[in-house]
Amino acid sequence: MPKLLPYRKDLDYSYCLGVFPCLELIQARPDSVRRLLLDPRGEENTGVQKLTALCERRGIRREYSPKLLSRISRKDNCYAALVFDKYEDTLSPGACHVVLHHISDSGNLGTILRTWLGFGGMDLAIIRPAVDFFDPHALRASMGAAFKLRVRQYDRFEDYAKDFPGHRLYPFMLQGALPLEEAAAAARSPYSLIFGNEGAGLPEVFAGMGQSVVIPHRDSIDSLNLSVAAALGMYAFGRAGNPGGER
Amino acid sequence: MPKLLPYRKDLDYSYCLGVFPCLELIQARPDSVRRLLLDPRGEENTGVQKLTALCERRGIRREYSPKLLSRISRKDNCYAALVFDKYEDTLSPGACHVVLHHISDSGNLGTILRTWLGFGGMDLAIIRPAVDFFDPHALRASMGAAFKLRVRQYDRFEDYAKDFPGHRLYPFMLQGALPLEEAAAAARSPYSLIFGNEGAGLPEVFAGMGQSVVIPHRDSIDSLNLSVAAALGMYAFGRAGNPGGER
Repeated sequence: MPKLLPYRKDLDYSYCLGVFPCLELIQARPDSVRRLLLDPRGEENTGVQKLTALCERRGIRREYSPKLLSRISRKDNCYAALVFDKYEDTLSPGACHVVLHHISDSGNLGTILRTWLGFGGMDLAIIRPAVDFFDPHALRASMGAAFKLRVRQYDRFEDYAKDFPGHRLYPFMLQGALPLEEAAAAARSPYSLIFGNEGAGLPEVFAGMGQSVVIPHRDSIDSLNLSVAAALGMYAFGRAGNPGGER
Repeated sequence: MPKLLPYRKDLDYSYCLGVFPCLELIQARPDSVRRLLLDPRGEENTGVQKLTALCERRGIRREYSPKLLSRISRKDNCYAALVFDKYEDTLSPGACHVVLHHISDSGNLGTILRTWLGFGGMDLAIIRPAVDFFDPHALRASMGAAFKLRVRQYDRFEDYAKDFPGHRLYPFMLQGALPLEEAAAAARSPYSLIFGNEGAGLPEVFAGMGQSVVIPHRDSIDSLNLSVAAALGMYAFGRAGNPGGER
């Protein structure tokens, strides 16, 4: 492995920051892990010790790189990170999906990954341009959920739709045709819950795809926060007897 | 008014950053507004012009303070802010409440304020120690919702409970006794939906108050994000025929 660089989108590896997400990564994707980075200040930490032992058992090289760690984490209290190869998943054609179209905030992405996993979802597509799934801060915001899900990034929505012709599409839009409760009650699996950009929402063209959905709210706000809207969608579709994934 | 200082919790005034929230503030709380701060680079902006005209009509002094603006906003593109006196609201005893106990993240607070307003809620209590409601960044994250709600900060939960003896308490906890759907279906208004700190949740003692609620999720995640959990609670209680506020 060449000299490690601060994270960039075009690198073919990324960093998983913090003990808890690292434990999730090494459990979920052991073959992608390349190296363990440690800060000597974390040596007494039992989580760090557990992680170190796990890496040792798997023959993963460890090194002390406090400077690189603090540079990539932008925090002083990150005592461990894993370097791992970026990977590509294939989504399950039988499972329900969440599709994130041009979303831009890494915190929202992380929260949505975590919520989807919590509600039994397993598959998620990201349509570019969008926040980089492998950005260490997005991964961190997901609290490790990122590694347990199957996630695929697409350059065009059409490519996604072509891969899953059997999926019923539910684009969430402010001008959606059906209120959430009704759409969820009549939902057919497998479905794709589609959410747009934080500011702009989904482009108008999505209104003509599948069954567009609106989450009713008062006029006193412009819109709901993206990760809130996505959670409400997952929850309502799940409680209507259409839980997220095949499990 | 003395020389303006960068925001601090102990000041008796705060700053509202950005044109849109400023328009909301001046509409909702005109008497609390003291001064308009402008960056000359924003002069061509129609929102800034609208805000300037509104302030002129109300006799609110304006001044150009680009340095102070960029200091308090920590961004370069904030062209307008209002200085306003901190105020204190009284919550309505007939309305449903959201109660945030020791929450620490200003983004979460802002998102929860916005969601609650969107679902028809009007009243919200914050139990200290907690993120400062008047922190300009919390206000900004609410997208102006903060000024439309009635918000009260309490030093102890007991003080809140004493003020509203007629409210049925619903503490949200990982070890809550009743799943969200069942609790919402049997809910009695007026109610208080109570949410705890991002990391620690609510203290154990809340399990003995009112009807504790759990939002069921898979073991694959530790917990839902706080603003997601709060939104699901508001949504489920609202759809069970117990909307948030009296309106």
